[in-house]
Amino acid sequence: MAAGQLEQGPTLRVTGADLRTRYCAVRARTEALAARLSPEDQQVQSMADASPAKWHRAHTTWFFETFLLLPHQAGYRVFHERFSHLFNSYYEAVGARIVRASRGMLTRPGADEITAYRAHVDAAMSALLEQCTPAIAALVELGLNHEQQHQELILTDIKHAFFCNPLLPAYRAEVPAPRLSQKLEWREHPGGVVAIGHDGADFAFDNESPRHQVLLRPFRIAARAVSNGEYQAFIADGGYRRPEFWLSDGWARVSDENWETPLYWLKDDDGSAKENSFVFTLSGAQPLDPHAPVEHVSFYEAAAYAAWAGARLPTEFEWEASATADACGPRFDHGEVWEWTRSSYDPYPGFQAFEGVAAEYNGKFMVGQMVLRGGSVATPPGHMRATYRNFFPPQARWQFSGIRLAKDI
Amino acid sequence: MAAGQLEQGPTLRVTGADLRTRYCAVRARTEALAARLSPEDQQVQSMADASPAKWHRAHTTWFFETFLLLPHQAGYRVFHERFSHLFNSYYEAVGARIVRASRGMLTRPGADEITAYRAHVDAAMSALLEQCTPAIAALVELGLNHEQQHQELILTDIKHAFFCNPLLPAYRAEVPAPRLSQKLEWREHPGGVVAIGHDGADFAFDNESPRHQVLLRPFRIAARAVSNGEYQAFIADGGYRRPEFWLSDGWARVSDENWETPLYWLKDDDGSAKENSFVFTLSGAQPLDPHAPVEHVSFYEAAAYAAWAGARLPTEFEWEASATADACGPRFDHGEVWEWTRSSYDPYPGFQAFEGVAAEYNGKFMVGQMVLRGGSVATPPGHMRATYRNFFPPQARWQFSGIRLAKDI
Amino acid sequence: MAAGQLEQGPTLRVTGADLRTRYCAVRARTEALAARLSPEDQQVQSMADASPAKWHRAHTTWFFETFLLLPHQAGYRVFHERFSHLFNSYYEAVGARIVRASRGMLTRPGADEITAYRAHVDAAMSALLEQCTPAIAALVELGLNHEQQHQELILTDIKHAFFCNPLLPAYRAEVPAPRLSQKLEWREHPGGVVAIGHDGADFAFDNESPRHQVLLRPFRIAARAVSNGEYQAFIADGGYRRPEFWLSDGWARVSDENWETPLYWLKDDDGSAKENSFVFTLSGAQPLDPHAPVEHVSFYEAAAYAAWAGARLPTEFEWEASATADACGPRFDHGEVWEWTRSSYDPYPGFQAFEGVAAEYNGKFMVGQMVLRGGSVATPPGHMRATYRNFFPPQARWQFSGIRLAKDI
Amino acid sequence: MAAGQLEQGPTLRVTGADLRTRYCAVRARTEALAARLSPEDQQVQSMADASPAKWHRAHTTWFFETFLLLPHQAGYRVFHERFSHLFNSYYEAVGARIVRASRGMLTRPGADEITAYRAHVDAAMSALLEQCTPAIAALVELGLNHEQQHQELILTDIKHAFFCNPLLPAYRAEVPAPRLSQKLEWREHPGGVVAIGHDGADFAFDNESPRHQVLLRPFRIAARAVSNGEYQAFIADGGYRRPEFWLSDGWARVSDENWETPLYWLKDDDGSAKENSFVFTLSGAQPLDPHAPVEHVSFYEAAAYAAWAGARLPTEFEWEASATADACGPRFDHGEVWEWTRSSYDPYPGFQAFEGVAAEYNGKFMVGQMVLRGGSVATPPGHMRATYRNFFPPQARWQFSGIRLAKDI
Repeated sequence: MAAGQLEQGPTLRVTGADLRTRYCAVRARTEALAARLSPEDQQVQSMADASPAKWHRAHTTWFFETFLLLPHQAGYRVFHERFSHLFNSYYEAVGARIVRASRGMLTRPGADEITAYRAHVDAAMSALLEQCTPAIAALVELGLNHEQQHQELILTDIKHAFFCNPLLPAYRAEVPAPRLSQKLEWREHPGGVVAIGHDGADFAFDNESPRHQVLLRPFRIAARAVSNGEYQAFIADGGYRRPEFWLSDGWARVSDENWETPLYWLKDDDGSAKENSFVFTLSGAQPLDPHAPVEHVSFYEAAAYAAWAGARLPTEFEWEASATADACGPRFDHGEVWEWTRSSYDPYPGFQAFEGVAAEYNGKFMVGQMVLRGGSVATPPGHMRATYRNFFPPQARWQFSGIRLAKDI
Repeated sequence: MAAGQLEQGPTLRVTGADLRTRYCAVRARTEALAARLSPEDQQVQSMADASPAKWHRAHTTWFFETFLLLPHQAGYRVFHERFSHLFNSYYEAVGARIVRASRGMLTRPGADEITAYRAHVDAAMSALLEQCTPAIAALVELGLNHEQQHQELILTDIKHAFFCNPLLPAYRAEVPAPRLSQKLEWREHPGGVVAIGHDGADFAFDNESPRHQVLLRPFRIAARAVSNGEYQAFIADGGYRRPEFWLSDGWARVSDENWETPLYWLKDDDGSAKENSFVFTLSGAQPLDPHAPVEHVSFYEAAAYAAWAGARLPTEFEWEASATADACGPRFDHGEVWEWTRSSYDPYPGFQAFEGVAAEYNGKFMVGQMVLRGGSVATPPGHMRATYRNFFPPQARWQFSGIRLAKDI
Repeated sequence: MAAGQLEQGPTLRVTGADLRTRYCAVRARTEALAARLSPEDQQVQSMADASPAKWHRAHTTWFFETFLLLPHQAGYRVFHERFSHLFNSYYEAVGARIVRASRGMLTRPGADEITAYRAHVDAAMSALLEQCTPAIAALVELGLNHEQQHQELILTDIKHAFFCNPLLPAYRAEVPAPRLSQKLEWREHPGGVVAIGHDGADFAFDNESPRHQVLLRPFRIAARAVSNGEYQAFIADGGYRRPEFWLSDGWARVSDENWETPLYWLKDDDGSAKENSFVFTLSGAQPLDPHAPVEHVSFYEAAAYAAWAGARLPTEFEWEASATADACGPRFDHGEVWEWTRSSYDPYPGFQAFEGVAAEYNGKFMVGQMVLRGGSVATPPGHMRATYRNFFPPQARWQFSGIRLAKDI
Repeated sequence: MAAGQLEQGPTLRVTGADLRTRYCAVRARTEALAARLSPEDQQVQSMADASPAKWHRAHTTWFFETFLLLPHQAGYRVFHERFSHLFNSYYEAVGARIVRASRGMLTRPGADEITAYRAHVDAAMSALLEQCTPAIAALVELGLNHEQQHQELILTDIKHAFFCNPLLPAYRAEVPAPRLSQKLEWREHPGGVVAIGHDGADFAFDNESPRHQVLLRPFRIAARAVSNGEYQAFIADGGYRRPEFWLSDGWARVSDENWETPLYWLKDDDGSAKENSFVFTLSGAQPLDPHAPVEHVSFYEAAAYAAWAGARLPTEFEWEASATADACGPRFDHGEVWEWTRSSYDPYPGFQAFEGVAAEYNGKFMVGQMVLRGGSVATPPGHMRATYRNFFPPQARWQFSGIRLAKDI
């Protein structure tokens, strides 16, 4: 079970030295991501769902301080006694949290002080990692995976913040190369009993367990994600104005928020969206690439597109079965966008939350969300796996979320 | 498949004469439910989720006028040309709808005019039913089941409206007899492949199809619903103040809306809820019966109670497998409260919406809701079945919704 | 002072018999206004600012029960012990009030029971009025003026409710005759020290006192209110799209609520407002009369129109000085619409609230509102006077409120 | 008139050299105020009414660029073509504005770039000031007074932002010395016709004109503002729980926002406010000084306190008459807190807005606000005068606003 993995699994895989190396690499990558951001950039919180980059840097550090150093490192002194309050995210058991939507109000500590906080914790962690028990190693591994999740959020959150700025600043200068056109092909799966969920010694989150059997019907699944050009055809065909394609809640959202395109598509100067020729990216405003995967769509839009296309979204079980099928080989392309599935985020049968301090990690979010599978251009290297269950509310659009189609046979 | 059932199934079961009898009985029951309500009572809409009784009476009638009489009865003249606009509920394809939250604004037509509208449609339906094709019979059957759903809503909605009135009026004079104490027993199910969903000639909604196989783990399920007395112990143990039992969204709801008890439990005169000795019912304020099932809890409360009790909620598949198991016999008591399951309301594999006019019936609500199984004291006679999938958002409390526990083995 | 008037004034004017006659006439007029309304019509509350007709009928009755019968009629028994709670409006000192926006939730007592309540109170009042002291007579007079205020609200509130109904029901069958064109003439006032406020033995509200001197500059004031045709020219000239005419709060309101015309002007079938040829009235949809006064405009619209017209609104002092000037004679026409003034609703110097039970009558509303002067087609006969200070928030549009222009000399 | 003053007045008073000196001094003071703030501090906007310090620095600079340099300095090149859009505040005539509540979203330009922007504009202004016409000088003087207004806002806005931070950071280290107890004395004014409004060659805003005569009744006015200790007595006497002292809107605000003390009074550790012994200041949390003026109260609180104290607030005319009376001498102490008056912010008779570019300066805010007189510890040196009309909505509490009492004689 998940909790057991945490306590025993990682010791099979990493030595203390390996873990130290990995700790340093993950922590350094966070700082590298933040290095492109000014103190002001790190301060801003552009909506309640997002968090300031500074907060991400501090909160991931707070995890190590709270769950590793304080209980396991004798004599550890906290960097600042109030940080436990400021940088807790949702662990109700650990104490009062600052209101989520007010994270952007904290101008102090500043970015520099967070840098010092990280250094303070890293130094103490370095000592702790020298005498690392399996239980500690499991928690460290959890902390590193947790930090990798926040690395992706640093990118999605600053993208949203920059989009709110009429200057449309660019996070980076590099521009992705245009893609080649790629025909939409379908793969068939015979259905039957498949094994779903994580199994083995590697790290996985508690929500990926226990591995269990699921009975599938035969189905077809697209070999790649839906492209911008395909999505433009949906728009051109009145996709955002025809309720027959939409779930009821989705149609209400379209109407209430005047959705006409995916989140970051730019309007023409006259306010119309008819051309849809430019899109806001981490590299600023760029021409829309018709052959790149459509991204920043909600589950509602994904489901409406699928209905328009005469298809449906795959369940998370179909997705996982396809991604792990022997024959799928290189033709089941994924990893550029998180892919909405037609599966609500429910617990697997026999699900047990991580034990102890991390008990609140995943289980308490298992309502009102949809599962996404795969991974995106913003996902850290090594953080994707076929059993990974990402989840967001059906209206969320600020993640790098896209669409894969499926069909009954 | 569902659409096929609609067109062919009912002809196997009911003759035209039977259907006329059934039509009259269902329609008369609606009027009997409304007969206890004054014109003012029928006018009120106490929250956006509820509807006026008058509207329920008109909307169910609109269904027959729109989907049966206009397309199938030559020469039919509508009762009022604007009623199609006023009493449409959610069929986007049929035309603009009046904003849901504003149904209580319509003082005209009055209750009397709705009575005349019903008589007008019933007279025309009587003629249509004399020459009833299978396709028409299927639509009539859908209309009658639709009206039965609204019969339950008439009761839940007026209960909420009366609760908003400081006078706490009673809908009826009869008071239920106190229950006997009943020990909580558990039934075991061996798991394995079970058949789930509707099969056969009887009517069922599209969301109960197709019948398909699901692989279950062994589990235990409680033989009866959780009682008020058991729920009081949860409250007394700090259930509403301890976040560790709650889903994150549920805990936010508890805090934002100051939940301290199920919806209709009455506070003591000093505003405290500590005694919880009275509850608002359709018979007005009544002493809380500790042995009756707890009702008017949300999914969040159901899940929190289960966590506190060291158990969990059953999935809808476990529930259905238990309810249809040969051995369960009389000891799987249900039918007093709708029972929240741990299943999100997702489509069954191979799901197809009803075809044609009724295509919007169920499918478009398949996001953001949880499945409830069973039936309640407000459910019309003959309207319960083991495959029935009721659904409401996880925060909904104004239905007669309760709790059944399950456990892994 | 106002309180003194209340205790001594009316005795100078009305004998007990006169007061009984007047009591019966005012009370009967309320019932006559409500007689055109169904029980459902009397139930509805279409927005938080409005109240159900049934509530108006009950609240005005509650006034007499609470402030006259209970303290002054020995042995009086209340009609229903909870009505004091249900029908209090804003007298914080008398006990908890039901939330204003929830008045439409009270289906019980029904309209018939309110009729009985009124009869019960009227019978007791009839006895009290036979032995009427000056102090009681003053309170009765206040209660009757209070009821007359609610008579106007019965009309404005049901007009709003009917407007929310797509059927656009008519309150009455009579249609006003078209008006003749009337040239806009100006009257000059020399300014100087003028006496403002109520003086004398007749009834007046506390906010009209004390009579005091105000120093005015010379000014011009229009002899009639702005007409629909004149207001159409403002619209045609882009009045609702040009911020330069608007107060900042007004412009925000125009944008947020998409104001394009006065409240009840009807759009053409294509949703545009360009023709503005029909308007919703108490007689249903009617052709817009270009020579009738424009009505149902907010203070913001009144001020914007005045700015567009190269004029301004009069202060309440200028208005009163004009209305009471000897020479103005029949040519200072008013009484069809309440006229927004450029005066905030502040207390007169030396203002004293009514003493005792009626202390909360006017003073506590003296912030955030603008003064209107005159009276409207909905104002009861005999309820207008030159010193009357009506007041509403600047965004209010559901009253019969119009525009009079003024200019500096 | 105001517009005339702008064009001719200042030339009587300042030479070009004087104006250059003054320009440099005012601009330097803004930078000195901001120098205590980190880039993050300058970024934050803690509520819609406040603005980031960075925005204040840029917006005041935008004023000079837009209204002075672009129209009057040949060949001037804007610092950044989009800044006109980003830093416009409310001048509808100048183009689209960024939504007020989203000012805190602009992480770019950063604080350093704003410093460069200010230097760029100051250099160009230096050249312009060498050839300064009277009309230009008048606009410069307006721009400098405008910047002084924003200097006060820099302090009030950062105070609010720091208060939102659980760390309660201090803006400055200096702590004010405790005050001596001072008896509350009253001054009498005989009333009569007094001259109100600005007159003369010095700068004043358009809302202070024209100077005109007002007729006053005799009155008494307190010689100093209400102290913290006096206000504590109001709280201790149930001031925040007794509706009889409050305006209706004020009482609603007390209830909705759970007001129990002035804005920045700190609760005790147990969440209660009963001690009220500490208050948040620009110097961080400090002991409450009972002899210092109470500050950060709304108009509602000021009026409620006055009612409780058996007094009332002065009108703005009584205040000005007292402040300019010959005999008042040093005993009419003011200048520590802005003092709420009982006057709504209406135009003076004959009011004319500034002409041309500055026409939107004051007039369009003349609704829904109350006048404050005096000045506060945050008001820049030289920016106070007896005719100054400050204004805020009655619920505003984040300004240094206090209470002065008056009484009828």
